[in-house]
Amino acid sequence: MKHEPLRIVQATRIERSIREDRNETLADETPIALVYNGRSHAVMMATPGDLDDFAYGFTLAEGIVDDVGEIEIVDRLYTAHGISLQMLIPQRRYDRLRDRERNLTGRTGCGLCGAATLEAAMRPIRRVTSTAAIATERLPDAFARLIAAQPLNDRSGALHAAALIMSDGPMLVREDVGRHNAVDKALGAAAMHRDRPRALLVTSRASYEVIHKAAQRNCPVVAAVSAPTALAVRFAEEAGITLIGFARGNRMTVYSHP
Amino acid sequence: MKHEPLRIVQATRIERSIREDRNETLADETPIALVYNGRSHAVMMATPGDLDDFAYGFTLAEGIVDDVGEIEIVDRLYTAHGISLQMLIPQRRYDRLRDRERNLTGRTGCGLCGAATLEAAMRPIRRVTSTAAIATERLPDAFARLIAAQPLNDRSGALHAAALIMSDGPMLVREDVGRHNAVDKALGAAAMHRDRPRALLVTSRASYEVIHKAAQRNCPVVAAVSAPTALAVRFAEEAGITLIGFARGNRMTVYSHP
Repeated sequence: MKHEPLRIVQATRIERSIREDRNETLADETPIALVYNGRSHAVMMATPGDLDDFAYGFTLAEGIVDDVGEIEIVDRLYTAHGISLQMLIPQRRYDRLRDRERNLTGRTGCGLCGAATLEAAMRPIRRVTSTAAIATERLPDAFARLIAAQPLNDRSGALHAAALIMSDGPMLVREDVGRHNAVDKALGAAAMHRDRPRALLVTSRASYEVIHKAAQRNCPVVAAVSAPTALAVRFAEEAGITLIGFARGNRMTVYSHP
Repeated sequence: MKHEPLRIVQATRIERSIREDRNETLADETPIALVYNGRSHAVMMATPGDLDDFAYGFTLAEGIVDDVGEIEIVDRLYTAHGISLQMLIPQRRYDRLRDRERNLTGRTGCGLCGAATLEAAMRPIRRVTSTAAIATERLPDAFARLIAAQPLNDRSGALHAAALIMSDGPMLVREDVGRHNAVDKALGAAAMHRDRPRALLVTSRASYEVIHKAAQRNCPVVAAVSAPTALAVRFAEEAGITLIGFARGNRMTVYSHP
C-alpha cells in the first residue's frame, strides 16, 4: 500500500451556482503506529512524510529517551491500514515507558479514575537551561522564511508547519496536517544536528503540548503566528521559555520571559 | 479551583521595537476526564466551557452510547488538576466500552503490536441514512451566521467553532481550542433537540475524525472553511456524506456526494 503526503481527488468547485469539475490536491493523513521493542505505544493520525523525523521527534519530545543516539529505527512497515514505525530503544528506557503507561493515562484511557487521571495527564515540565535564544528582532525574517518554505501546504492548503532555528544557522521546516506532529517532525530533524535549537516557530496556535515538547528539547523560545492558550503561558513561565504569539510582520506579543 | 474558558494574562506587545505592556485575553485549556460508571475512559485537553454539551457530545460521537437518554451526568468535579465529568451509562454500554478499550488502542497505547493496532485505529464508519441535507445555496449565509456567533473567539482569537444546523431551524454554535472538542460540544448541544441535524459546519479543516463524528450522529453534510484531508474525503464517500471544503463567501468545493 502506498502512502503519500498528498493525494489528488476529484471535486466540484461551485462559485455563484456555476459548477466546474476539477482535480484537487489534498493533504493526506494515515494512522502511524510508534512501536518500541516490538510493542505498540501509540497510534497517531499524521501526514505520511518525513517518517524518520517523526519517529525521532516523537520519541524525544515525549521524553521516551533523552538522546537521539538511543533510538534505532529497524523497520518501516507499510500496510493497508497505515504505517508502523518499528524502533529499538535501550531496555531501561523501555521499562520506564512501560511504568509510565501503567501509571499514566493522559489521553489514553487505560483506566484510572477521576482525580489521579487528571493529575497524571499533565506531566511536569522540564526547565530550559539553554541560553541560545534568538533575538526577537530576527523573528519577522524567520517567519517570512518559514511561510516561504511549505511546499506541501502550497499545493494543498491544509497543513501546519513547524520550524527549528538552530545555532549553526539553518532553519528546519516540517509539515503535517496535525500541529503537534509538525512539531515532532521538526524536533526530530533538529535532533540530528549537534547544535542547539534557538527557537521553535509554528504557523498555528501555541498550546500546552507545543510548550511541553519545546521544553523537553531545551528550546528557549517558542513563537506562533496565532495566539497561545493561557495554559501554554503558565507552562512557558514555569519552563523559562520566552513565548511569543501573534507574530505577524513587525508585530508580536510576548507572553513570558521577555 | 476555578476553570474559565478565558483568562486575562499580562503581555508585552512589540511593534517595530516599540514595547507596550498590556492585559490580553486568552482562551484556556484544561484536562477534562470523561468518567463512566466510576472509571476514567479518556482525558482531553479542552476549553472549560459548555461542559455538559461536551460530556453528551463526546459520549455520542465516540459511539459509547446511541442515545442521549442513556447518559446521566452525576457530577462535575473541579480539581486543581482539571475537571472530572462523572457519567452513568447502562451496564451493557459500559461492558461494550471496556471490550473496545481492550481490543483497540487508537491513540491510547494500551499495547497491541504493529498491524493489529493500525487496523483498530480506524473504526468502521456508519452509513448516514438521513435525507435532511441542507441546500448548498444556504451555506454561505449559514457560515456568515457562524462567524458572527463566536463570542469567545472574538475576545481571544484562538478558538475553533463548530455549528449544527437543525431541521427545525436553529443553529447551535460551540467553541473550543480543540477542533474535535468544538465538534463534540456542538453535537452534544444538538442531541438535546429532537429534530435531525442537517449540516455540521467547522471553522477549520475537515479531518477524518470530524467526518467520523458526523456520521455517528447521522448528519448528511459537513462543510469546512478550510480544506479536508484526503482521508476525510474517502470516509465521506463511504458514509454517504456530502463533504464541502473552502466554503468562503459564494465559493465552495464539493468533494463527495454533490
